[in-house]
Order: sequence, then C-alpha cells, then structure tokens
Amino acid sequence: MLNVGVIGCGGMGRDHIKRITERTQGAKVVAVADMVEALAQKGQAFAGESCKIYSDGKDLINDPNVEAVFIVSPGFAHKESLLEAIKVGKRIFCEKPLCTTAADCLEVIDAEIKSGKHLIQLGFMRRYDKGYRQVKAAIQSGEYGEPLMVHCTHRNPVVPDSYTTRMAVDDTAIHEIDVIHWLVNDDFVSAQVLFPRKTKYAADHLYDPQIMLLRTKNGICVDDEVFVNCKFGYDINCEVVCEDGAIKMPQPLYPSYRKGAQVSTTIDTDCFVRFHDAYDEEVQDWVNEAARGVVSGPNAWDGYLATCTADALVKAQETGEIVPIVFKERPDFYK
Amino acid sequence: MLNVGVIGCGGMGRDHIKRITERTQGAKVVAVADMVEALAQKGQAFAGESCKIYSDGKDLINDPNVEAVFIVSPGFAHKESLLEAIKVGKRIFCEKPLCTTAADCLEVIDAEIKSGKHLIQLGFMRRYDKGYRQVKAAIQSGEYGEPLMVHCTHRNPVVPDSYTTRMAVDDTAIHEIDVIHWLVNDDFVSAQVLFPRKTKYAADHLYDPQIMLLRTKNGICVDDEVFVNCKFGYDINCEVVCEDGAIKMPQPLYPSYRKGAQVSTTIDTDCFVRFHDAYDEEVQDWVNEAARGVVSGPNAWDGYLATCTADALVKAQETGEIVPIVFKERPDFYK
Amino acid sequence: MLNVGVIGCGGMGRDHIKRITERTQGAKVVAVADMVEALAQKGQAFAGESCKIYSDGKDLINDPNVEAVFIVSPGFAHKESLLEAIKVGKRIFCEKPLCTTAADCLEVIDAEIKSGKHLIQLGFMRRYDKGYRQVKAAIQSGEYGEPLMVHCTHRNPVVPDSYTTRMAVDDTAIHEIDVIHWLVNDDFVSAQVLFPRKTKYAADHLYDPQIMLLRTKNGICVDDEVFVNCKFGYDINCEVVCEDGAIKMPQPLYPSYRKGAQVSTTIDTDCFVRFHDAYDEEVQDWVNEAARGVVSGPNAWDGYLATCTADALVKAQETGEIVPIVFKERPDFYK
Amino acid sequence: MLNVGVIGCGGMGRDHIKRITERTQGAKVVAVADMVEALAQKGQAFAGESCKIYSDGKDLINDPNVEAVFIVSPGFAHKESLLEAIKVGKRIFCEKPLCTTAADCLEVIDAEIKSGKHLIQLGFMRRYDKGYRQVKAAIQSGEYGEPLMVHCTHRNPVVPDSYTTRMAVDDTAIHEIDVIHWLVNDDFVSAQVLFPRKTKYAADHLYDPQIMLLRTKNGICVDDEVFVNCKFGYDINCEVVCEDGAIKMPQPLYPSYRKGAQVSTTIDTDCFVRFHDAYDEEVQDWVNEAARGVVSGPNAWDGYLATCTADALVKAQETGEIVPIVFKERPDFYK
Repeated sequence: MLNVGVIGCGGMGRDHIKRITERTQGAKVVAVADMVEALAQKGQAFAGESCKIYSDGKDLINDPNVEAVFIVSPGFAHKESLLEAIKVGKRIFCEKPLCTTAADCLEVIDAEIKSGKHLIQLGFMRRYDKGYRQVKAAIQSGEYGEPLMVHCTHRNPVVPDSYTTRMAVDDTAIHEIDVIHWLVNDDFVSAQVLFPRKTKYAADHLYDPQIMLLRTKNGICVDDEVFVNCKFGYDINCEVVCEDGAIKMPQPLYPSYRKGAQVSTTIDTDCFVRFHDAYDEEVQDWVNEAARGVVSGPNAWDGYLATCTADALVKAQETGEIVPIVFKERPDFYK
Repeated sequence: MLNVGVIGCGGMGRDHIKRITERTQGAKVVAVADMVEALAQKGQAFAGESCKIYSDGKDLINDPNVEAVFIVSPGFAHKESLLEAIKVGKRIFCEKPLCTTAADCLEVIDAEIKSGKHLIQLGFMRRYDKGYRQVKAAIQSGEYGEPLMVHCTHRNPVVPDSYTTRMAVDDTAIHEIDVIHWLVNDDFVSAQVLFPRKTKYAADHLYDPQIMLLRTKNGICVDDEVFVNCKFGYDINCEVVCEDGAIKMPQPLYPSYRKGAQVSTTIDTDCFVRFHDAYDEEVQDWVNEAARGVVSGPNAWDGYLATCTADALVKAQETGEIVPIVFKERPDFYK
Repeated sequence: MLNVGVIGCGGMGRDHIKRITERTQGAKVVAVADMVEALAQKGQAFAGESCKIYSDGKDLINDPNVEAVFIVSPGFAHKESLLEAIKVGKRIFCEKPLCTTAADCLEVIDAEIKSGKHLIQLGFMRRYDKGYRQVKAAIQSGEYGEPLMVHCTHRNPVVPDSYTTRMAVDDTAIHEIDVIHWLVNDDFVSAQVLFPRKTKYAADHLYDPQIMLLRTKNGICVDDEVFVNCKFGYDINCEVVCEDGAIKMPQPLYPSYRKGAQVSTTIDTDCFVRFHDAYDEEVQDWVNEAARGVVSGPNAWDGYLATCTADALVKAQETGEIVPIVFKERPDFYK
Repeated sequence: MLNVGVIGCGGMGRDHIKRITERTQGAKVVAVADMVEALAQKGQAFAGESCKIYSDGKDLINDPNVEAVFIVSPGFAHKESLLEAIKVGKRIFCEKPLCTTAADCLEVIDAEIKSGKHLIQLGFMRRYDKGYRQVKAAIQSGEYGEPLMVHCTHRNPVVPDSYTTRMAVDDTAIHEIDVIHWLVNDDFVSAQVLFPRKTKYAADHLYDPQIMLLRTKNGICVDDEVFVNCKFGYDINCEVVCEDGAIKMPQPLYPSYRKGAQVSTTIDTDCFVRFHDAYDEEVQDWVNEAARGVVSGPNAWDGYLATCTADALVKAQETGEIVPIVFKERPDFYK
C-alpha cells in the first residue's frame, strides 16, 4: 500500500484524491495540503478522517508517513514542491506543466539527475488512453512503415471568456505536444501557427480556431486543429499516415442510434469523460511502477520538451513565422 | 432507339415514363395507355406530344410503332396484358407481381415457353442496387464460402391505415423474397412468421412488426424483420453469413455530420430515394438487353416463385406454423 | 478489505484470483481450494504466500478468516458450496450456472430466502460490459419507446470437438439468455431453435450455426445467431428495435487501418479479451456492494430463470417445436 | 440529340467517346480528331462508322455537323482549339487545365466574353460527385454556420517515375483547388507547401507526400495532404469544419466484410472508379444544359483561378514561403 500525499485540493486535486481512494489498487491518500483550508477539508472528505491536513506542501512532503507526493497545485508552484520532494527522495506525480519556463524545468531536471533516481512522472494522461496505445502499438509493429504525417484535432465545445489565445497552446495543444512526440518517438524542431477565420462564438480577444503545425527531427509533419468553441463536442482525433498505411485512432465507445431519419452516435463533451479511463490508468501505473522503483510514464525530460515546444508555438502565434524549437541535448539519464 | 409503350399511368407508371424519357439511353416512350384519360394525359406530358394515348392496353400492345411494352397497371390486370404481348411477340417489362395467383403465373409462363422467346422482365429493382450487387459479387467470389444465414431488415417509417397484415408479405417482404433468392442462388422450401409485440403506431388490424423466416433448399435460413411503422426511416439491411466470413450490405452514401454532441448520418425515408439508381439501372439494362434479345434480369419464373413463396408466408401468418413452399419443377426454358 | 476465498483453481478460478489480487480495489484472496493440489498451489501463487490452501471447499467456507466466497468449481459442484456458504451467512460470487437443474436452483433459492439475506451474485459478466450498459441506459431513457425485437449474434471463431449441440445453449446462448432478459427487463415465455445449413467446419455431431428464438412475456421477440465455428472472430452484436428507434451496441474499440485497398478494424477472437473490462467490473462491483450488504448484479433468481430458459431451448433443439418456458412465480424476496 | 466532336483520342478522350456513346442521354459523337491516325481510329471504333475522322481539331470544329466540341488534347494545345470554337460559337467541354498559363487563360476568357455567350465548361468532375454535392448542400443549408477550415486528403497508390514534384500541384491538388473553392464559394488568397519526411517509395526527384495550405479571402484555411505513393489506395477525404458543426464527405459504397479477425471495407485504387459516376454526371449535365444554352458547371473563369492558384503553389514549393495568390477582378460576365 503506497501512502500518498496530495498537494493542491482544487477540482483536479480532489478528483485525484477520489480516484486514489476509490479506484486505485494499492495506494491510499494519507495527507492533503492546500493553502485554502476549506479546500483541504473537501479533499480530506474523500480520503477519510485518518487523512492529515496541511496548509503548506513542504510540510506534507516531509511527513514521514507520506511515501509519495501528488503535485496538483497551480503550475507556477510546481518547482518548489518538486525540488523539495526530490531533496527528500520521494516519488512524485506532477500534473502538467512540469514548470512554466524551460529554465525552471532544467533546474528540476538537474536536481532529479543529481538525486540519481527517477522520481517524477508527469500528468500527461493521454499516453494511457487505450486508443492512443493501440495506435502506438500499430506503429511499433512496423507493419505500416515509418510515420510521415500526423493529423490531429483537439476540439472543445466551449471555453470561458478568460481563455486566451496563448492558452490554446499551454492548456490545449500541450496534450498533442506530448502524446504525439511519444507516439512517433521523435522530437519537434519547428513550429508554426495558422489563424483561420474566427468563429463567431470566440471572445473578441481570442483567435479560435487555430492550426498548429509542428515538424519533427525526422521530418514528420503534425497538424493540430485546436478549436475550443466548436460547439459540438470534445472531439479528439488522430491519424498517423505512414509509408505503408495509415492508422486512425478510434472514437469512444457508444451505441449507434436510429431515430428521426438519422443514425447517430455520441460525441463526448468533456475531457474528463473522454479520458476517464486514461486518468485512472496513469495513476494506477504510477502506483504499480512505484513498487518497482521506475517511471515508465512521461518524465521530467518530457515536461521540459513540452515547455520548449509550447514556447515556440506561442512565439509562432505572435510572429506568424516558422519558429525553430531549441532544447538541450538529452542527458544520458533520460535515454 | 427502342420504342416503348407504357400501360398504366399512375404514380409508378409516370415515374417510368419520366425515367425512360429523361434518363434512359436508347429508348423513348411512343405510347401510353390508361383507362383514366386524365392519367394517360399526365403520362403523355412527360413523353412529349408525339406520344400516342390509348385507353386500352390491348390497343397499345398492337400499335405497330410500339416495340416493347411496360406493364405498370394494377397486379390483377397484368395477366391479360402479358398474354397479349406474348401473343404478338413483344418484349415486356412488368412491374411486380407477375400475376396475383400461382395459377395465373403458370399460364403466363406456359405462353412464354410456347412463344419460344424470353420476353418478360419483372420489376424487382433491388437486383440492380449497387449494394446488393456487391454482396452477390462477394458471395460469388468464393472467398467467403457457402452462405448459411441471411439477416434482413425491411423498415419503413410509416404506412397508411389501408395497409394490411397480408401486405407485409405481398408488398413489402416480396422484395426480400426475390432478391435473397437471387443473392444466394437458391429456392425457398418453407416459411414461418413471428408476430412480436405490436408497435403502438400500428393500426388495430395490423400486425407490425413481423419477422419472416424462410429456409432454402440448401438449408440457408433467412430472417427478415418487416417493420413498416418504424418511424425512423426506410432502412434496408442485409447481412449474409457464410462459412468463411460475413458480408454486410453498405448503407446509402451520406456525409457524417458532427453537431450537438452527435456524429450522425442520414437514413433515407423513401424507397424511391433509396433505390433511385436501381430503378434507373433495371430499365437501362432491360433496354440494353433488348438489343441483344435476352432477359438477364428477373424473369417470369422468378415471378412465379415469388408468388408461391408469398402464398406460403401468408398461410404462415394465418396459422403460426412452418408452412412448406411448393412449386413445380423449373422448366428447361428457365434454366 | 474484503477477505475472499476462492473454490476452484482451474483457468477461470486462477483468472479471478489474479483479478482480485492485481486489479480489484478493496479485496484480497486469503484462501483457495481445489481437489487437485497442484491447481490449488497455482492459484496460491497469484495470491501470495499468506494465502491458505484447502482441498475441500467446505473447509474454506468455514475458515473464519474468509469473509466471502468465490465459487468457480464445475457447475455440478455449485449446489453443495452454495448451501454451505448460505448456512454460515457468507457472501457468494458464483460462476454460471447457479446449478445444473431447475430443482437444484430452487433448493438454493429457498435456502437464501430462509437466510433472510441477499448473498449470491452470479457471474453473468455481460451486464457489466460498457456497451450493454449503454444500450440499457438508452432503453431506460424512454427516448426510444418500448422494445419490440432484439437481434443478437454470438459468434466464436472455433470450438473443440468436445463441444456439443447442447452446449450451444448451456455455454453459449446462456449469456444472451441472461443479458437480454436484464436488458429489456422481461422474462422469457417460449423458445424455438432453427438449424441452418451446417458449416463445413463443424464436427459431425454438432449443429452449427443455430438460431435461437425467444419470446418474452411482453411479446418481445429475440433472435440469437449462435455460430461457434464462424472462423472470423468472437463477434457479439446486439440491436434492440423499439417503437421509436433502434439501438445498436457498439463494437470494441480499435483503430481503423488503411492498407492494401482496405480500411479495416479489429474483431476480437476471444471472450476474455472482449469482456476483459466486464469481468473486472463485475468483481469490483460485487466487492463494493459487499460493503453495503446488497447484491445489485445478477442474483440466484436470475440463475434459476436462466436454467429454465436453457432447458426449454434444449428441448426445442430436440423437438424442432416452439417450447413453452415454465417457471415459478417470482418470490417477493427477489422483487 | 447533341452532335459532339471530340478532339484528342488518347485514353481520356476515348473514355469520353465511350461515355457519350453508351451512357449519355441526348448526345452522340459524330466526329473525332487526333494527329495520330491510329488513335483517331480507336476513338471512332467506339462511336460507330458514321463518325468522321479528322487529323486537325480545327477542321473538326468547323464541321457543320458538329454542334459542340470536346477538347481532350494535351493542355498546351487547348488554347488554339478553345479560340477556334469560340470564334464559330460552338459549345465546349474542355478537360482541365483551361490553359497552362494565366495569360493564356485570360486570352480565352476575353474571347468568350466578346462572344457574349457562355460556351466553355471545364472538366472538373468532382463538382458532380454525390459526396461533394451533399457536403455543399449541407453548407448551403446554413445549419452548420460559416466554414472555417477544410481538411483534405488526395491519396494515390502509386505514380510513375515521370511524375514530378510540380505535378503534385498541376495534376493532383488541382482537383481540390477547384472543388474546395466551389464548395465554400470563396477565392484563394495565399498558398504554402510543406514537405514532410519523404516516403521511401517516392522517386529521388519527387517530394512525396506534400501538404498544401491555402487560405481564402474569408480566411478559411484549407490543408490538403497530397500523397501519391501512399500504396493503400485512391483515398479522397474532405472535412469542412464550420462554426456550428463539421461535415465529412462519405466514402464510396462498399460492403463490410468480416474475415480473419477484421471487419473491412474496400478503398478504391483508381480515380476513374472513384469518380466514375461524377464523370458521367458532368457530361450528362453539360449535354442537358446545352439544350438550355447555359453552363452551370465549372467555367472558364474557374479555369483561370485554378491556374493562378496552381502557379502560387508551385512558387510556394520552390520558396518554402507563404505566397500571395493574385488574380484579376472577376468580370461581370462570370458573376
């Protein structure tokens, strides 16, 4: 039984607490932390009375009963918790992003390397989605040859007014940045962003939809339609076109309905429904791997790559140009 | 150019006149006949002023300018026209049924055999539907082995109050009776009808839906869901399960639409839309084959078999029993 | 943590031991029993050394450390274990069938009623399959009106020579018997079996395929194609045709592949892959409900109904007739 | 009956001669022309002995028995025939391209305007494909709001070594250039081309695949994957993403086959099969409209726009830059 402490008891944090408590085999939440006491109490409510409450993540990390740490605080606060947990050698599950700047990511990476242990897994849950895994397995089978192009859509029914053009990269395309790099086992080298005609449903300040174009070291071209006010659903598509065939990710499982001169099936409207099982799997895998002392999910280096790629896409949004993506050489530690 | 005379200028007759005039290559309508003068005039309106009008089909058949005859009159009137046209040796396209009784069918068959020429093609248009033809081609390829079972649906959105339980056989299942027998190249030997729970949308006197069960000489079992008040569309399905695989007929071509948390596509609501191209093809084929002096579509013997099978299904409706289907041995003429 | 004892360490039993140990939250296997010591040891190997080994299920049931019992022994041995476990008031998960005869089922039911507690859940895992649950939810939504017909297929790639005509009912259609009765919330009243042309791949003694026809109290007609040497896959289909629309169960999630002039997707070939998640869910649900002291899955009465229905289908196989299905009135205890 | 003369009796020309003779209602081929006498004779063979043979297209155009002209000669030869046919006021069906340079296109356009009659229809057959027409109808219905993006693929199984990088524009993407501009009723304003990783199946001199990016006046972004050695089929896809929903063009009609643990359907491997009906429809429509004296298909102005757009894409191939597309203002004559 892995004793977990969770830092950050907002919606996502409580979701993880509930998951670990109710659906994860071999782990339990023994401590929660949040600066806002009411949130911490809400978090505790899922985990049970024996769960301790902290206001400061640092104290939680140093609680000797806490064997592993979940970091679900806002992105800017990740670095401090990461460094503290590394210092005391505790395993970490950190929601995306690793850190908000490439420099901070590198600082964390340096610390992890110095610790000599792979401690950090990042919350890119899509790698645990059955559909993506099936696509990756098909690529790896060799039956379809080398990947040449990837066509993606990341469609969301609606976003609040506070959602900005930049968030289309940082909060939305960030998922394709990680999962596609993992899928084709390749790193991105340049980025471009197209702004198509704006939907009338986008706020004045927001470019929506956007098309993100990424190129990998091997020349694979990725196009990602990011459309966050598409109205009709949370619609994630991915097609990998290879030399000997093309592979399209399946859509979620729903019946087909015949009614009113239509055959229809359901599109999800919510990423937590769409990736429900993937969220469960990533946490279960992290718990299982903890027992073996390894990280097989997205790691700190993946977090650094994602941040560098996102930075280039944001620059591409601002300039309209094809922006090179620059990152350090991969340390042996992460090979 | 084949000069065609059309007997019967109701909706279906006029539809054929329009088809021959506008969309059939190598044929034109030179005469129309209907007891109701107003209908005959409506028919003529599609064909042009040079088209002659008759009140009596017999006169039309004997018009020396008429090379071939379309019989689109009510079923009970078919026999007389068929015999007359055979007598004068003119080619015939006859809408289903050939005749309303097996005895009448045999009389027509005798006449055709005596004439020594294959003159009659029956209007079972489904044999010309691209989907059915693809399924037949797949069966004939041998790649899927011998057919063992056929699952069909014949769904119609709604019927008028005048539609009777018996018409589920005579007007509806009659299409599967012909097309499945052609598809698997086998004759039916017994019939059974199930009456499931009635839909609330059926008239008091009508059993709807019904499940028709047919068995062929080779033992192939056919089930046909006939549901004529299904509300949602004109939905024709056919799956042939063979020893080495199963073949499902495609649905008509429509875009898929993403809207309102659904991906949907269209179901037809009308058999004339669903089989639009098949109607055109059957007539074009008849015209093309006329030039070669052969009938490659459904012939008089198919009409006789359909009538015998329908009779057994009606008896099965009345008795609830498994009813043997009896017919004469196939004459060499139709082998 | 629910302490479970597992009786029967054959393939299915060991599968459950593995499941409970590795993937079930809140339960662990503390004892296993098998007459064959080697099998019991194999079972223990999954559960860990602290797991006790018994040769006699009765001893396992009476082990005070065992809180709940899994019965995965052969069907004929179920009754004895069921009665013993009821006697000592322990919760039971029993693989299908409940018992092999209706009389034995009733004896177990009487014992459970007398115990005053709902103790038995049966291993009809399909009720936990996501697709079936979605179909049931759609029916229950009322949007499609009353169910009138259900079309099913239960196709299996191949069976060993030892598989008999009767097993098409007892081992194969038994799954539709339970799941369809649950889906439409109705009981069966009559059964008929059709024997289509035999596939060349069936053993001499085996009728394959078969079509099972069932009618419910409300008149719903169910047809179930049972085809156990279909070669192409483990292919489970279910379409419920209602008054206001039709609902088709989704197929398992696989990518679509473009290669060699085909777009294809995968069909499972194995029921344990097809219903992998359903098996996990049924056990997890049983564990979760144990905490609440209720049985929300298939219960002993469902087991009795399944056995009565199977008996009628076997008689229908033997006679070719429509056989009435007779069972006692449902006791208040199971309402 | 429209008397047609066909200039150019290569494969495509003969295909049109066969089509007009066998499948087009209301037209016949009365003359053919080809510099190569053997080809002209092959062309005549389809049309029948009464069909005249010319070596010079100009003579054919001036044959008083020829009412309308089909130009199926190589692109560079189109201008001369077009100007001649316009001079004598005969209706023209011209295979793409109108002319090989924008300047030549304008010369033809000037001549047509001066003639005061709409004479020219261009052979962009996709506008007559049922799927594209359904998508256009859906856009025009207004139900999906304004189009914002269009995702296309134009995949071809294999090309000969003589196929060049530039031909990916001139011979391949040219179809999307016309059909998408028609679909969304908008003109292109800029072009960009991406070169993804090359497939190992492409000749050394050929970039394959390519991604063509086009932007319209209204800001619609079009991406077109052109992949001419994709191996798996002739695979044409088109999805129009609008403000209120997305519309995906259907794939051609084929059965679904269950075999070998797969459900599969067929992908065409040939554009003449894929667009068989569209070729027939475009010619039939041209014949029908001839009777009314109008051109409702793609006209000379569409040909000019296509040439200008193709020029920009070729420049984009050469420079890697986003290239503006420049064309004259649309004359009133073509509004």
